[in-house]
Amino acid sequence: MISRVGFQRRTVIKVREGHRQQTKDAVVVEEPLEIRLVTQGDTHSIPLATVMRTPGADVELAAGFLFSEGIIRERRDIATIRYCLDANRDEETRFNTLIVTLRPALEINLDHVRRLFFVSSSCGVCGKISLESLRLRGCTPLDDHPPIRVSSTVLTGLDRKVQQAQALFSRTGGLHAAALFAPDGQLYALYEDVGRHNAVDKLIGEYLLNERRDLLAQSMLMVSGRASFEIMQKALAGRIPIVVAVGAPSALAVSLAQQFNITLIGFLRGASFNIYAGAERVV
Amino acid sequence: MISRVGFQRRTVIKVREGHRQQTKDAVVVEEPLEIRLVTQGDTHSIPLATVMRTPGADVELAAGFLFSEGIIRERRDIATIRYCLDANRDEETRFNTLIVTLRPALEINLDHVRRLFFVSSSCGVCGKISLESLRLRGCTPLDDHPPIRVSSTVLTGLDRKVQQAQALFSRTGGLHAAALFAPDGQLYALYEDVGRHNAVDKLIGEYLLNERRDLLAQSMLMVSGRASFEIMQKALAGRIPIVVAVGAPSALAVSLAQQFNITLIGFLRGASFNIYAGAERVV
Repeated sequence: MISRVGFQRRTVIKVREGHRQQTKDAVVVEEPLEIRLVTQGDTHSIPLATVMRTPGADVELAAGFLFSEGIIRERRDIATIRYCLDANRDEETRFNTLIVTLRPALEINLDHVRRLFFVSSSCGVCGKISLESLRLRGCTPLDDHPPIRVSSTVLTGLDRKVQQAQALFSRTGGLHAAALFAPDGQLYALYEDVGRHNAVDKLIGEYLLNERRDLLAQSMLMVSGRASFEIMQKALAGRIPIVVAVGAPSALAVSLAQQFNITLIGFLRGASFNIYAGAERVV
Repeated sequence: MISRVGFQRRTVIKVREGHRQQTKDAVVVEEPLEIRLVTQGDTHSIPLATVMRTPGADVELAAGFLFSEGIIRERRDIATIRYCLDANRDEETRFNTLIVTLRPALEINLDHVRRLFFVSSSCGVCGKISLESLRLRGCTPLDDHPPIRVSSTVLTGLDRKVQQAQALFSRTGGLHAAALFAPDGQLYALYEDVGRHNAVDKLIGEYLLNERRDLLAQSMLMVSGRASFEIMQKALAGRIPIVVAVGAPSALAVSLAQQFNITLIGFLRGASFNIYAGAERVV
């Protein structure tokens, strides 16, 4: 799916070479989405996290967030996801809170969850422990069966394809994108958001909810901007074998890619790109 | 201060027009920094947050983070900040945990802090409540005494000045920057980090620790990338009257700037920029 997101028209004074002009311009919407959990046997929901996001595909965002943070593992772990319909809330507030009810038999360690978010969704104390914590959570290196291969020719066209698909980008200039491509360069999905992490969560959430995680495992994830540890962590959770960034990767992102057998490509611009890990998948 | 940050040399395969070349390239370091608090009467520290950051200016980062999140209000609220020197830790781990001891008489509401971070450092449920929560925390609109003014000519040179100062940017391409300028365009300070928020926290932390918050209130903050709600929230905590972004602002960032009387400039590129709020400070 190619999702279109919201923007607002705001008054702006444009200054060009010293000349001022007052006009209206599109500004991307950024609002908090509070994700609340109802767990086994509970009637009340507890706050899990609030993410600053661009409204749209909120259900996918919540599902992808829970999945990539390791709180749920499968589609069936979620019983329902619904907006809070408290009568006291006005319409705006109502669509900024999602209540996720987990399936009754699902055991989650709330202390672990609490700690996870208490420490800002990172569980480690140092870089080594961060990678180690992914193993403790059950993440294993990707195998190469079936082998996924992408040609340099396909890669060099990806940034243009994302730009073309980002109809909204040209209107606000303020949005990150996460796109999923087949190895032959076919665009499967694209999400935009003020937060790069959110765009990736929305994308992974869509495939989780549609029970098409098999397709993630045979695809390429392309992100605008940099490849950070957290982006790679989400790709690993989704078992996506190839990650392509327009910007630079961090050293920890490279280490994660190497240790978990993910192909990591950075600085993709036109016919140029850098391979930081998993070069055997690029032919 | 102009801070220089760390990078690692990693093997990379550069593909240019179909030709491959294996070489070494600088990749920016990204590691978790765990911030732990020791509060009144306690002997043990509790984990407050873990941020993924580029090592360097960690003490400033911790101080700026506590300040811009509203946990402390003044320099004297901090008794000490030290790395965890647990003998069990290896050198790498040791420098990824900071223990902040607050002054004995400081009362902080740990439940509030817990809730703050449990919900990812955002306290509201909707956009309106986010702005409202800043007021509840005691944030008031900036007054204009003494009036701070900046000329268009000074503004149009700022992006070039930041680029020149970002010696490291050209080496890794992976770093965000936050810079503080006098209204006449003099560069006071510049911090780089994998996270834009961290760069702003490091900068504000420096001025807090040096008891020069008065200077923040007479300066301009320039950030690479976009102007999000959280960047504006930090500027408001520091009482910085002018915020300049290379990229786009979000709608919520514009609302915050309007309601708290901060000048917000976006899309600053060469001789062009857009004023989204507080145009009276641009002459």
